Amino acid sequence: MARELVILGSTGSIGRQALDLVQQFPERFRVRGLAAGKNWRLLLEQTVCFRPEAVALQEEEDAARLRAALPPGLEPAVFWGEEGLERIATLPGADTVLTAVVGAAGLRPTLAAIEAGKNIALANKETLVAAGEIVTRRVRERGVRLLPVDSEHSAVWQCLDGRWDVARVILTASGGPFREYSREALAEVTPEMALRHPTWRMGPKITIDSATLMNKGLEVIEAHWLFGVDYDNIRVLVHPQSVVHGMVEFADGSILAGLSITDMRLPILYALSYPERLANTLPRLDLSAVGKLTFEEPDRERFPALALAVGAGRAGGTMPAVLNAANETAVEAFLSGRIPFTWIPKVVEKVMAAHKIKEGPDLADIIAADSWARAKAAEVIGECGEC
Amino acid sequence: MARELVILGSTGSIGRQALDLVQQFPERFRVRGLAAGKNWRLLLEQTVCFRPEAVALQEEEDAARLRAALPPGLEPAVFWGEEGLERIATLPGADTVLTAVVGAAGLRPTLAAIEAGKNIALANKETLVAAGEIVTRRVRERGVRLLPVDSEHSAVWQCLDGRWDVARVILTASGGPFREYSREALAEVTPEMALRHPTWRMGPKITIDSATLMNKGLEVIEAHWLFGVDYDNIRVLVHPQSVVHGMVEFADGSILAGLSITDMRLPILYALSYPERLANTLPRLDLSAVGKLTFEEPDRERFPALALAVGAGRAGGTMPAVLNAANETAVEAFLSGRIPFTWIPKVVEKVMAAHKIKEGPDLADIIAADSWARAKAAEVIGECGEC
Repeated sequence: MARELVILGSTGSIGRQALDLVQQFPERFRVRGLAAGKNWRLLLEQTVCFRPEAVALQEEEDAARLRAALPPGLEPAVFWGEEGLERIATLPGADTVLTAVVGAAGLRPTLAAIEAGKNIALANKETLVAAGEIVTRRVRERGVRLLPVDSEHSAVWQCLDGRWDVARVILTASGGPFREYSREALAEVTPEMALRHPTWRMGPKITIDSATLMNKGLEVIEAHWLFGVDYDNIRVLVHPQSVVHGMVEFADGSILAGLSITDMRLPILYALSYPERLANTLPRLDLSAVGKLTFEEPDRERFPALALAVGAGRAGGTMPAVLNAANETAVEAFLSGRIPFTWIPKVVEKVMAAHKIKEGPDLADIIAADSWARAKAAEVIGECGEC
Repeated sequence: MARELVILGSTGSIGRQALDLVQQFPERFRVRGLAAGKNWRLLLEQTVCFRPEAVALQEEEDAARLRAALPPGLEPAVFWGEEGLERIATLPGADTVLTAVVGAAGLRPTLAAIEAGKNIALANKETLVAAGEIVTRRVRERGVRLLPVDSEHSAVWQCLDGRWDVARVILTASGGPFREYSREALAEVTPEMALRHPTWRMGPKITIDSATLMNKGLEVIEAHWLFGVDYDNIRVLVHPQSVVHGMVEFADGSILAGLSITDMRLPILYALSYPERLANTLPRLDLSAVGKLTFEEPDRERFPALALAVGAGRAGGTMPAVLNAANETAVEAFLSGRIPFTWIPKVVEKVMAAHKIKEGPDLADIIAADSWARAKAAEVIGECGEC
């Protein structure tokens, strides 16, 4: 039986790779809805190719452009804006929603999809970072599946496979392109340098997050919510070869590790086909060709973002949402050349220091904290002339 | 509820480590029966400590010695010989039999325990090598569990955990102490050198088998029977650090790997406590302290025993029993200084070449092939003066 898919963020890196898989397994997946940001031309191509019944774009004008360009005989419903995204997320015929939009923008449509009883293939970690408690509670209450797409969490999830006698979760980090950079060299890093990730092909936001190690910090928070593991029992190891993605240490001290080639299509496919595994034509991992795997502690001083994120996770309440919003704002400022690389964690730290945590936040509290943090981060960035 | 244990081979390396675990978890395990070879003094100590209801030794005189030395108030049944071993293997009150005798001698008592409805914690790989088809069939028919104790198979079993969409099983080998020896240097290896294993503390037979890589070959045959995987889909990788013990590659190309410190008590404990995992005081694996894991192809020319074993497995019928018996005879000859190290695989090869395979053998056929191979190996060894 084919899985009926919705992809939120279909023109991004994860969305495109997911559609590549749909093409490889036409009998397994059917695309019911696609949502994108501004790239209406690519969404048009995808619409022609996959014939979804509904699509959405961020702006009304782009929606009109796409509608006007549709070839004869193709008449999907075309939505736009936040409401349009939610229409796609809750499309009646779909059973699984791949949430691959970037940043906290994924929160509302993910919650809407959960309310509508969809299984969630979660590629948008910011949703769990900002609102982990609310999201996991609603997932339990609605009885839907929350299927991790991040390679690290996919590996951990495969190691667990329903077993819960877990002592510790270990997430690996490639260490990013600047693993061996000095503090001084880090200050000179340009966006172009930071966008060249050594092992993974990913979108720009996550690539910058990988370079600061913020990504690993966000993943620690994500792992906390996905697997119900205390922060004390989540460990990060730098593993530059990116062959081992995640590990689980069980009560007796035995460890299971998840390994694969560095291709996001593998964790995407597993999330979409779960509990089945589909044979595919991707290259296989050959450990004798890799030869050597190394592991080391992350350098928490040169890469302070990791500790900031774990600290926000431990603090709880609205703090992880603030961390995430400040980071998104700082990454944008770095990518547009307004702050240096080393200022990304500084902005986040200053915003966090100014935040008064609200405990047990509801969705409105989280959205308010997110807005506050973005404004505060912009303010801090504005003062960067003097930094 | 405590598990009611019988240990066959209680004075050997595996047996002693198992009793060490029983001592650590007195509420989990009770010792009902112990069987040993010639070491009646240690069996006496174990009897005093663990108070089994029955014990057995190989020789009648040793049984009499032990009986005479029992302290007042301690009156276990004392058996001897092959019949005595089977009495212990089928002890009515026991539910789990740890088979840790060395070599093909484990075959009869293991089968007797299966017939008696016991779960088998299998530390005696030669049983599956010599009679894999018969043993696994009887296990299925009797509905008992066959729990692997070999660290490699324990790791694979933990990765599988009931999942069967397996593409490939990967067993790692430390490569033994002579991994980097030239052909010439291998010819000069003494028993003393071969008994020093770089990573594992084990009995002498398996330590020599590790040095020749015959052990890995026997493990390939064992994996074939335990996991129902074709020989084409069992791969051996040399991994000198002995941190990753076994791996499973699934249909989609994802790999799960089992890692732990090199301490046989972990796989013994998992087999005995399955499906539970028991928290324990053994040291934990710290990958950042290990730092580096390497993987390479085994050198099948310098270590021909591996290919001999896989060839015997593929040939099937009585051939694996012949391989095993010839190897046991050759290892004894090496340990007593009668043949050089490099002659162990040569003896096995010559015996295999002289064997006419009997297909679909019954137990009598296997025992006959074993006896024939021991005699033939002795003959080949006798001619070694000219080698």
